[in-house]
Amino acid sequence: MDGGLLKGEDDPVIVVNSGGASDFVLVCEHAGRVIPKRLGTLGLAEEDLARHIAWDIGAEGVARRMSAALDAPLILQRFSRLVYDCNRPPESRDAMPAVSETTPIPGNEKLASSEKLERIEVLYRPFHGAVSRLLDQRAAGGTESILITIHSFNPVYRGMRRMLDLGILHDTDSRLADALLKSLTAEPDLAVRRNEPYGAQDGVTHTLLLHGISRRLRNAMVEIRNDLVHDEAGQEAWAERLSRRLGEARMG
Amino acid sequence: MDGGLLKGEDDPVIVVNSGGASDFVLVCEHAGRVIPKRLGTLGLAEEDLARHIAWDIGAEGVARRMSAALDAPLILQRFSRLVYDCNRPPESRDAMPAVSETTPIPGNEKLASSEKLERIEVLYRPFHGAVSRLLDQRAAGGTESILITIHSFNPVYRGMRRMLDLGILHDTDSRLADALLKSLTAEPDLAVRRNEPYGAQDGVTHTLLLHGISRRLRNAMVEIRNDLVHDEAGQEAWAERLSRRLGEARMG
Repeated sequence: MDGGLLKGEDDPVIVVNSGGASDFVLVCEHAGRVIPKRLGTLGLAEEDLARHIAWDIGAEGVARRMSAALDAPLILQRFSRLVYDCNRPPESRDAMPAVSETTPIPGNEKLASSEKLERIEVLYRPFHGAVSRLLDQRAAGGTESILITIHSFNPVYRGMRRMLDLGILHDTDSRLADALLKSLTAEPDLAVRRNEPYGAQDGVTHTLLLHGISRRLRNAMVEIRNDLVHDEAGQEAWAERLSRRLGEARMG
Repeated sequence: MDGGLLKGEDDPVIVVNSGGASDFVLVCEHAGRVIPKRLGTLGLAEEDLARHIAWDIGAEGVARRMSAALDAPLILQRFSRLVYDCNRPPESRDAMPAVSETTPIPGNEKLASSEKLERIEVLYRPFHGAVSRLLDQRAAGGTESILITIHSFNPVYRGMRRMLDLGILHDTDSRLADALLKSLTAEPDLAVRRNEPYGAQDGVTHTLLLHGISRRLRNAMVEIRNDLVHDEAGQEAWAERLSRRLGEARMG
């Protein structure tokens, strides 16, 4: 990787509170929307780079506040999912999408194998390597880990309004999701559902499979409607609610 | 890792035919039975270090011959599973077992966190890193991959004779295992079964989950009774049979 795609850039991975005492380990694959300088704007307008297609709006703010509230480690990806979507394996068409939702991504068209491999090596591998190393260290020290990934979704998708505040997603291991849903459905006026607005069939459980299910750790993916967490007050309220409910779910 | 557990040792991972043109990628976690010099014999007698508890007898010979027959890449672990069992995540009690089957492993008793972490970092991480990198490279180049792990089992377990020649194991994705079993059951006089002599519930599908299921690649684990492959003639015959049957299973 001579000349390096990330030459002169900050490290793609941010690890927050790595020694946190909580059972929970938080992961935020779509926290940031940085594009490596060498790739310009991927051919997109600035307003497109602020949209959900580039990152999970509000997710970092919620995740950082949850990390503080729970005393949990948190691993964040700074770069935009349009460059490499760290919740997708390299085989996936969505890992480096030529079209996201209905928006063509010019900078991702006709990528050479070498360009794909560079993004895999500088964005995907270090991110998941950091998650693996943290989980390894905790395992070696005898600390249990419960993996939670924090995401947000658009209120409107292809012109349809989504009637949902919160989704709790899982793959084949639903232990933690079951307990979390049980706790959350006690809240009045909260529209929460299992495996909505998407689910394992849409390929969104890669991180859960790679780190949670492969190690038989309890795990779940949290999806918050992004208009609820676009400001700090919303992020604070949702971090408080989710941290409290996770604390209950942890007990089974 | 100052002083390095593997100081002066050969690399733990052997990659054979990395550019092989086959869809199949072969993995053999229990190929070798080397113990790092610093750990002596783990407190075991030489005859124990030749037993199934230390490695999968015959598996490397079968896997190398399959690699040649199929033109498939193959990744082998040289070190004994008693030091680190690369088909187990670091959380697993079986990753660095204090007792294997009924044999106490003195060198694995009361391991400090730092000792566990060193084995994870020098044996487990590089092995799975090599598998990940190979699959990443193939994905970036647009090459499909089908993951096959090659193992062998003891004819006798805790005093009981196992009435089985071959087991085909899978976790939640049974596509390739179904096709392989269909092809293999056409053979007369072959005792082949699904998820025997063990299965996912015994924690033996870690590699399949980590590399196959997390990427949605077709995958299966092959378990051959080790008295059938302890010599080269047996290894040759089983490699030929399995390669032929995998070629059929690949078509669906």
